[in-house]
Amino acid sequence: MSQVRIHNFSISLDGFATGEGQAADAPFGHAGERLHEWMFATRFWHEMVGGPGGSAGADNAFAERYGPGIGAEIMGAGKFGPPGWQDDPGYQGAWGPNPPFHTPVFVLTHRPRPSMRMEGGTTFHFLDATPGEALEQARKAADGQDVRIGGGPTVVRDFVTAGLVDCMHVVQVPIVLGRGVRLWDGLESLEESYDIEAVSTPSGVTHLTFTAKNR
Amino acid sequence: MSQVRIHNFSISLDGFATGEGQAADAPFGHAGERLHEWMFATRFWHEMVGGPGGSAGADNAFAERYGPGIGAEIMGAGKFGPPGWQDDPGYQGAWGPNPPFHTPVFVLTHRPRPSMRMEGGTTFHFLDATPGEALEQARKAADGQDVRIGGGPTVVRDFVTAGLVDCMHVVQVPIVLGRGVRLWDGLESLEESYDIEAVSTPSGVTHLTFTAKNR
Repeated sequence: MSQVRIHNFSISLDGFATGEGQAADAPFGHAGERLHEWMFATRFWHEMVGGPGGSAGADNAFAERYGPGIGAEIMGAGKFGPPGWQDDPGYQGAWGPNPPFHTPVFVLTHRPRPSMRMEGGTTFHFLDATPGEALEQARKAADGQDVRIGGGPTVVRDFVTAGLVDCMHVVQVPIVLGRGVRLWDGLESLEESYDIEAVSTPSGVTHLTFTAKNR
Repeated sequence: MSQVRIHNFSISLDGFATGEGQAADAPFGHAGERLHEWMFATRFWHEMVGGPGGSAGADNAFAERYGPGIGAEIMGAGKFGPPGWQDDPGYQGAWGPNPPFHTPVFVLTHRPRPSMRMEGGTTFHFLDATPGEALEQARKAADGQDVRIGGGPTVVRDFVTAGLVDCMHVVQVPIVLGRGVRLWDGLESLEESYDIEAVSTPSGVTHLTFTAKNR
């Protein structure tokens, strides 16, 4: 059975995966890009944006698990675009003509629209569906490979709560955001369903991995 | 100048330092003792309760910083006893005749009572005071040594927000409590005032140390 995976999902010490005040020029609100600086420093990221260099240590080892074996992604409407994108029929997502997914991507929205084929192998499909229904479609599209849940935090919580996630990689960044959308809400006793490991790295972040028990 | 320190302050992944439903037989509410199992395994703890054994690794190294150099503690009413202890004039705290503090301890309460001298060097004083006022009294009693802020989370937050804490040691335990009292509320941008280090240990916890900048 293909796995359902979450990678490089970054949160603050107080558990916020995005700040307050999300907008087109501030996709993570007042958090800015502070939750992702650890990743921008890695070779994984440098290669993704086409440049040389980048660290090749522990942060990079975790970051590089993002792509291999993934056949489809599921994301929430809030990741696809800023509030109100549904009112723009020509909107094509926050990543330009060649998005970094290179697989089918299923966008959960209450206002579906026709699929959009982009450059580089990404096709956006739009679904008004439960997590289980969306996963069924994504699994078919993934053709035996794994499905990545791309976020944001509400979508991650929904899939975890539904018991659909096999492994989750969370990166805790040493900042206190104070406001935004929390990852942990509603996940009481998560440790009963997952084996949890923590490892801090020299960049100052702590990688938390959750591996579903009994699978 | 003597330092103001916080040690072995344990929280869940979602930032709760105590659970919901605190009572005489459940000082941490539904959290039980799960936030402190890492500490019970250390030599520090074994020695405190008078037994042999215990781990002598990284968790123990952090735990042992609790006592040395401390001349007084400040704690909140919620740590001193269960809800309603103020109505019992004979109540002597949650630790029996020989409490583990061995210094003057200042209990913050809106209903002060006469001081109580216990066995082993602990004297409880009761203050209705602001953090700054309480610290001034504790510093005098500490006679040049450091002052420990003993918790609970509300008191820790109040002292950190008032800019009075020099170093804080937080231990993040891999459980999700879901409800209770959070450490992080109201501490947005804490990283601007503190250098933060994180280190995970083989027991599965992550030690976070906060060292005040520019002191």
